[in-house]
Amino acid sequence: MPLRGFEGRLCYGGDYNPEQWPEHVWVEDVQLMRQCGVNLVTVGVFAWSMLEPAPGQYEFGWLDRVLDLLHDNGISVVLATPTASPPPWFGFAHPDALPVTRDGVRLVHGSRDAYCPSAPAYRAAARRIATALAQRYAGHPALALWHVHNEYGTVCYCDHAAAAFRRWLRDRYGTLDALNEAWTTAFWSQRYADWEHVLPPRATPYLANPAQLLDFRRFCSDELLACFREQRDVLRELTPDVPVTTNFAIAPWVPIDPWAWAREVDLVAIDHYPSSNDGLAAEEETAFVADLARGWAGGRTWLLMEQAPDIVHNGGWMVPKRPGQLTRLSLSHVARGSLGVMNFQWRASPGGAEAFMSAMVPHAGPDARSLREVTHLGAQLANLGRHDGPVAADVALVWDPHSWWALQGPGLPAPGLDYWAMCRHVHGSAWRLGVTVDIVAPGEPLSGYRLVLVPALFLTTASAADAIKSFVDSGGHVVVWYLSGVADTNVRVHRGGWPGLLATTLGVRVERHYPLPHQATVALDPAGTGSSWSELVRPEGAEALLRYAKGDLAGEPAVTVHAGRAWYVSTRLDDATQQRFLAQVFAAANVAPAAPGAGHGVEVVRRGQRLYAINHTTSPAEIGAPSQGSQTGLRIEPGTYLVTDVDNLVTDIDSAAHR
Amino acid sequence: MPLRGFEGRLCYGGDYNPEQWPEHVWVEDVQLMRQCGVNLVTVGVFAWSMLEPAPGQYEFGWLDRVLDLLHDNGISVVLATPTASPPPWFGFAHPDALPVTRDGVRLVHGSRDAYCPSAPAYRAAARRIATALAQRYAGHPALALWHVHNEYGTVCYCDHAAAAFRRWLRDRYGTLDALNEAWTTAFWSQRYADWEHVLPPRATPYLANPAQLLDFRRFCSDELLACFREQRDVLRELTPDVPVTTNFAIAPWVPIDPWAWAREVDLVAIDHYPSSNDGLAAEEETAFVADLARGWAGGRTWLLMEQAPDIVHNGGWMVPKRPGQLTRLSLSHVARGSLGVMNFQWRASPGGAEAFMSAMVPHAGPDARSLREVTHLGAQLANLGRHDGPVAADVALVWDPHSWWALQGPGLPAPGLDYWAMCRHVHGSAWRLGVTVDIVAPGEPLSGYRLVLVPALFLTTASAADAIKSFVDSGGHVVVWYLSGVADTNVRVHRGGWPGLLATTLGVRVERHYPLPHQATVALDPAGTGSSWSELVRPEGAEALLRYAKGDLAGEPAVTVHAGRAWYVSTRLDDATQQRFLAQVFAAANVAPAAPGAGHGVEVVRRGQRLYAINHTTSPAEIGAPSQGSQTGLRIEPGTYLVTDVDNLVTDIDSAAHR
Amino acid sequence: MPLRGFEGRLCYGGDYNPEQWPEHVWVEDVQLMRQCGVNLVTVGVFAWSMLEPAPGQYEFGWLDRVLDLLHDNGISVVLATPTASPPPWFGFAHPDALPVTRDGVRLVHGSRDAYCPSAPAYRAAARRIATALAQRYAGHPALALWHVHNEYGTVCYCDHAAAAFRRWLRDRYGTLDALNEAWTTAFWSQRYADWEHVLPPRATPYLANPAQLLDFRRFCSDELLACFREQRDVLRELTPDVPVTTNFAIAPWVPIDPWAWAREVDLVAIDHYPSSNDGLAAEEETAFVADLARGWAGGRTWLLMEQAPDIVHNGGWMVPKRPGQLTRLSLSHVARGSLGVMNFQWRASPGGAEAFMSAMVPHAGPDARSLREVTHLGAQLANLGRHDGPVAADVALVWDPHSWWALQGPGLPAPGLDYWAMCRHVHGSAWRLGVTVDIVAPGEPLSGYRLVLVPALFLTTASAADAIKSFVDSGGHVVVWYLSGVADTNVRVHRGGWPGLLATTLGVRVERHYPLPHQATVALDPAGTGSSWSELVRPEGAEALLRYAKGDLAGEPAVTVHAGRAWYVSTRLDDATQQRFLAQVFAAANVAPAAPGAGHGVEVVRRGQRLYAINHTTSPAEIGAPSQGSQTGLRIEPGTYLVTDVDNLVTDIDSAAHR
Repeated sequence: MPLRGFEGRLCYGGDYNPEQWPEHVWVEDVQLMRQCGVNLVTVGVFAWSMLEPAPGQYEFGWLDRVLDLLHDNGISVVLATPTASPPPWFGFAHPDALPVTRDGVRLVHGSRDAYCPSAPAYRAAARRIATALAQRYAGHPALALWHVHNEYGTVCYCDHAAAAFRRWLRDRYGTLDALNEAWTTAFWSQRYADWEHVLPPRATPYLANPAQLLDFRRFCSDELLACFREQRDVLRELTPDVPVTTNFAIAPWVPIDPWAWAREVDLVAIDHYPSSNDGLAAEEETAFVADLARGWAGGRTWLLMEQAPDIVHNGGWMVPKRPGQLTRLSLSHVARGSLGVMNFQWRASPGGAEAFMSAMVPHAGPDARSLREVTHLGAQLANLGRHDGPVAADVALVWDPHSWWALQGPGLPAPGLDYWAMCRHVHGSAWRLGVTVDIVAPGEPLSGYRLVLVPALFLTTASAADAIKSFVDSGGHVVVWYLSGVADTNVRVHRGGWPGLLATTLGVRVERHYPLPHQATVALDPAGTGSSWSELVRPEGAEALLRYAKGDLAGEPAVTVHAGRAWYVSTRLDDATQQRFLAQVFAAANVAPAAPGAGHGVEVVRRGQRLYAINHTTSPAEIGAPSQGSQTGLRIEPGTYLVTDVDNLVTDIDSAAHR
Repeated sequence: MPLRGFEGRLCYGGDYNPEQWPEHVWVEDVQLMRQCGVNLVTVGVFAWSMLEPAPGQYEFGWLDRVLDLLHDNGISVVLATPTASPPPWFGFAHPDALPVTRDGVRLVHGSRDAYCPSAPAYRAAARRIATALAQRYAGHPALALWHVHNEYGTVCYCDHAAAAFRRWLRDRYGTLDALNEAWTTAFWSQRYADWEHVLPPRATPYLANPAQLLDFRRFCSDELLACFREQRDVLRELTPDVPVTTNFAIAPWVPIDPWAWAREVDLVAIDHYPSSNDGLAAEEETAFVADLARGWAGGRTWLLMEQAPDIVHNGGWMVPKRPGQLTRLSLSHVARGSLGVMNFQWRASPGGAEAFMSAMVPHAGPDARSLREVTHLGAQLANLGRHDGPVAADVALVWDPHSWWALQGPGLPAPGLDYWAMCRHVHGSAWRLGVTVDIVAPGEPLSGYRLVLVPALFLTTASAADAIKSFVDSGGHVVVWYLSGVADTNVRVHRGGWPGLLATTLGVRVERHYPLPHQATVALDPAGTGSSWSELVRPEGAEALLRYAKGDLAGEPAVTVHAGRAWYVSTRLDDATQQRFLAQVFAAANVAPAAPGAGHGVEVVRRGQRLYAINHTTSPAEIGAPSQGSQTGLRIEPGTYLVTDVDNLVTDIDSAAHR
Repeated sequence: MPLRGFEGRLCYGGDYNPEQWPEHVWVEDVQLMRQCGVNLVTVGVFAWSMLEPAPGQYEFGWLDRVLDLLHDNGISVVLATPTASPPPWFGFAHPDALPVTRDGVRLVHGSRDAYCPSAPAYRAAARRIATALAQRYAGHPALALWHVHNEYGTVCYCDHAAAAFRRWLRDRYGTLDALNEAWTTAFWSQRYADWEHVLPPRATPYLANPAQLLDFRRFCSDELLACFREQRDVLRELTPDVPVTTNFAIAPWVPIDPWAWAREVDLVAIDHYPSSNDGLAAEEETAFVADLARGWAGGRTWLLMEQAPDIVHNGGWMVPKRPGQLTRLSLSHVARGSLGVMNFQWRASPGGAEAFMSAMVPHAGPDARSLREVTHLGAQLANLGRHDGPVAADVALVWDPHSWWALQGPGLPAPGLDYWAMCRHVHGSAWRLGVTVDIVAPGEPLSGYRLVLVPALFLTTASAADAIKSFVDSGGHVVVWYLSGVADTNVRVHRGGWPGLLATTLGVRVERHYPLPHQATVALDPAGTGSSWSELVRPEGAEALLRYAKGDLAGEPAVTVHAGRAWYVSTRLDDATQQRFLAQVFAAANVAPAAPGAGHGVEVVRRGQRLYAINHTTSPAEIGAPSQGSQTGLRIEPGTYLVTDVDNLVTDIDSAAHR
């Protein structure tokens, strides 16, 4: 379903919370929005207590005026249902609908998300306010998109949650015997003899059951999805022409399976807050997250719903973005499929727990460097316009949230096994080599690609293994990293050596894990170092490319290749070695950068006939036409970008050559 | 109200807990006290379970004997009400009066402070035991001072606390609308529609509301103050001639506003335990805390009620004081206004959770180095006698516990923003330059000073800003440090640039915070480094004294001066740079050290006609007469002190010159 | 009571959990066991939910088949009662029997140990399943040993626990006055006036009472021991010929006094998981733990019930053992008194929280380096056979779990006072010098030894002090380390200087503790450094061997000796200095290594006529006959061991000399 009114143009805007301000500020707001090129704002995300100050008592007047004002100024609206933060009265009306922690603490209002997703009273209240909103604003000309809730992710361990978890498990397993088998309840005397004894993973004396933890995450994903669907169905019925989305938050603790959720939204939308601005970390992470979003969207367009316009959260420090970085990172999102650039938030909040978060209009007021960056970006986006051509990628990376969750479980061979970091390392290495990567779900057909990258696919299903095997059998190339194929979908460990169902394809059998303690490294032969992890790899057909040079594994293979196209990597290669290795793999698989000169901070993405080139470095760069292979070509000044037609590029290169 | 019996002499003693010992030890105690020069001891601080072993059943006989014994030996008594630690029976008689944590855990007896300050049963029990004590000991000749409770600071989140918090909020705000505005409840859908829905900041799913947290601290301060006042009023009625105090604890987590409390006590009393003994850290901190106490006392005398005679708590390590350090630190307190020196405690406890805390009589017994230090100090204090003249200071530092609390809130631009450390850094820099500093509350008139120092006045009220503006307008000099003027009294962020209400006075507008991550530093031009924080400072009248030399702020001002007398500092200057800068400011403001030669570990305080000079260093020092400006003068041996009449000093210098 | 069927041969095997596998795997299991030389397996440890899937409903068929299968293959069985992990139904049938934390959180099933040891319903259920097992398998020919429960250590703070704690305290103290005295309740107003007010150390506002904490640990030890005894008595009645044991876990948080427990078991059994594999840390720790077990067993044989066959837990990292290390560490246990070598576990679990723990049959399957190591060890043990002669040791180390617990209490002079590490440092230094050490309980007669080592005997009773005094008076030598003699059995601090009751014997009086902050060191004169701790030591008869060279203690004694045979060490000596010092002490006490050439990684233990020599190093070693004193002798290849008759050694040396 298209985003009405944005044919040919990119969205630009952010969360707008007029309820935090007196109405005279609204006038300044829309005037500034127009100056900045804002054409879309998200309204109402946390407005429940303003819209329904007491149960069943609605106050829509202010929102009417906001939507009219925006519409009068040519600004469209993403209208949010406010269900992420029930008002204070909610917990008093329905104490049983407040969330409960693992430890049995019933949380109260005072921040946000104070509700149990499984509580009938919450579900009813959420449907009611969504219905009221849809009834009120169906047909409002500003309404472009529904934004249900915000960053779904609430977890609850109460009795409502327990009952719902049991229903979900019954659906999944059918019989208690199947549950007992799946959860390995023969271990530590956990066998269930009665469905009523199954609980969420509440506080327990020692290590919890990993399969129970994992299934509870899956249940949370599905339970929250049910919450979403209930609202979506209300909205679809009342406003059948308006697409419905919700913004995915991406973090280790968010119990959302984006592959499943993407099937239920009309438009994939994500929030993205890079976690570091060291070197090019934010740039690498942006490319990864944008590729993820495009993957979830099945290669189609998606929307960056939130980013921080002016800061990067470095640990707990809110560090301002570097000059031009807002534009460069935003362009990366657009190049990789976003319909535009939305920010959190329009105007910095006057108070509250996020008063110091970044905003398009800072506390200091309009006369500020950051607003000038925001205005510049708005103009650039307007110039660029929207082109939805498919992103060109010969390489796919298999990404699996279930493996992410399982690697957060107890009892693993090492602490801090960070699935996200492992995927980032692989994707980032390709990014530094200028190669565009698609993200695919385990088990998806891979036939369109030349090369598939598989980092840490801890839980490997038969379908995922089959897809990879078929791909390789048909001539495809694959690289599999350590911690893949270790267990099945219920964290039952594969017997017979790792990477389990992938072992034959790779021609290796891993006999033993040798986790490397924090900070330890192992030298590789002929060159390079490994860290974090190592393994005793028995080649069963594969040849060694790199070997361990020291320690108990001295002389044993560290990286292998089977039949010239199936690589296995048993340790975390240092950055340089990983890039050298991947360059070798790319050469073997006939994978090229998006354009000659791409890589090492010069980000190039080809999208249909368009080429986006962003120079994130402080030196000038030159890129050639993808078809030519020349390293000289079109110049891109430090910190700037260039968007051009692929065919024009040849001309551009010529002209660049005559400079 | 004077401290009876201490006209002309200094107090010396400490907490005395005879209830921990058989009576034959008491005899040894008083004998040793006399040897040590002890003339005042605090009795009964934690004796509730000994005085009222069962509800309403009193045992005063032992205390009668203790007071008589002390009096017979010429030792006066600070008699404590024991309400800081209700006996075990209390929680069984009144389970609803036990304290409850944020998480809803009801705590039990087993340490101390097991009560809810808002529970009617606690309040009644506290009044009852205070009344019984006052009735019993009114007129006892040993009784010199009432010491209510101990280190008030207990926090509770129970329903009693909730009800009292709501009453306090109604008093403060009048209407729910005003509360909603003050707390910015429009953020995250927190708007209250019913007073009954307002709660203490109990456990909530995510970041709590900063204004709610801050108001809860304020409420705790007022609620505990109400506890104090109830007891004080009982004591005043029954013993109108005996002054009443309570000892203030000073720590980030103590929810006490000393400015407000100081108005309610007859004598300001503090406990002081330095947190480090690295270099001169304990000495610097002592001067700061003593100046704070004098500030709270409105420049009048106060009392050091507790210090550790023999140790400094270095993190969790109880490290013995250095030889002579007990005397030097004690003298610093006396010089800065303390009526004497009281210690925790007289005799090391035989057991319990503080058995290894320092004591005047150590476990090892009387034949110990530490007791010799204690005895030496007693003799010195007796020789010195008491002189209550006002401390001379041309410089004031504005200190605000509300800013301290607010800077502990969630959602700030950086973690670990340590208000205490920032104040200490400023005060300590002045201390190292030999300059005496008074501490004043925000909004107090500043007319008596030449210079005002304002570190991190995060919450700046109009009255505080007006006081500073008037002061500068009348020719005063001011230095304001970063993180000042950021928000109003409810943590609502100032719009239009920082330091908000102080910006005009300083001629700058701060557009953006650039927090510096942990360990990061930024070079300054022409010299020096900044750490912890930096800012994009737009001069609006001010000139740059120092500029940022590198990074995104390269070339922008770091330290500015406006109209030659209003400085703004936007980063944490390294120690040397801060001292160079302050020396420059002192010169401009015509501020001189307390005496020539003061500073760099040679602490000099002028109090009326008296000059106290303490050489904390291991080298000999010389000080000149304040009026002369000569660097040569009276010699002070390493580690010793000298107290003299200011006029005598000239003579002393002469005689020193002829040595 | 002998272990039937193991006369003359060593046990070899591990935990076997066939309930986790289909029966066809069992057949592979026993075949592999035979190949590996396994002759004993522990069955049923966590099988409660398989044996009693619903209350009172038993399923023994599978266990019948397992025992028969094992017996048919010549493998004996340690049959466990499964009471360490009640099934899920248990908590639903008896909610009051689930454990409760300090904070009042009632824990649920989901891991293991979900029960309150004091709950009547748990006690009854445990007796019932133990009875059912004993009735069923009394007389089964495979049954060699009963293994009650697993790693007793559960702690609960619920009302059942509170009532039981009060009963225990009444037994211990008789009167409330005695309790008040023992717990120093005069401190902080904790005096009890009613037994019903005494509680476990539940969450309390501030530091808990150290004596209450310590007594609660003692109570837990006794309460769990009562649980054990109830089952033991059932088993003894039904199978009077089968010995009964339980496996002791060794960790700071385990509230078990092994000295008391050892008196109640028929065979001391321990689990041992070294905590580091840095250098020879695992080897040193193994020797220490094996000596502890032998000490608990009163010098008799004992059994290593669990070790990890293939990994060492380095922090959270499961790092594979080095080649040959499994055999070497196992031999160390056998040399020091173990009846054999049992592992956790036979076959790696298919799932659950310990699926990645080490196993004899790894996930990778039988064709694995680790299984080859396991098989090799089996063959070695079969060759060696069993010889129960007494271990020869001239040195004893006094070890006291109560001091360990007390040093985990609040309010100590320094954080991180690690009793275990202090004992390990002393024992490890002797180990590096090749000297065998027995472990004895405080107060045990010491007459058989030449030298007694006393590290950190924080709580020193009169009987412990008397035993040491008598020993020294009769010509014995003793070394006492800092933190000894500090307090009595209720953490009441000794008055008059430390090491309290040991001071006279040592000729010193410690006046003051000078804890050294983390990482700080102090130089010693003439050589060496101290860390962690220092003291102001006043010699009262003793002479200084080493003095503090710097700081406030410069020139004061650091290590002293009294009457040529009573040493006192007031700081943690660096490794080299500690070894030099101990070498000097050994010489004075006429203590020799177990054989010439022993030490520095060459572990030698003499047991009766047998000499076990294990070369843990990567260089060849040579040892001489104990009676000869020659440094040349029998060669031991790197990483190998040698077991020989002491008399043969002389011959061996000769033949070695002619090589």
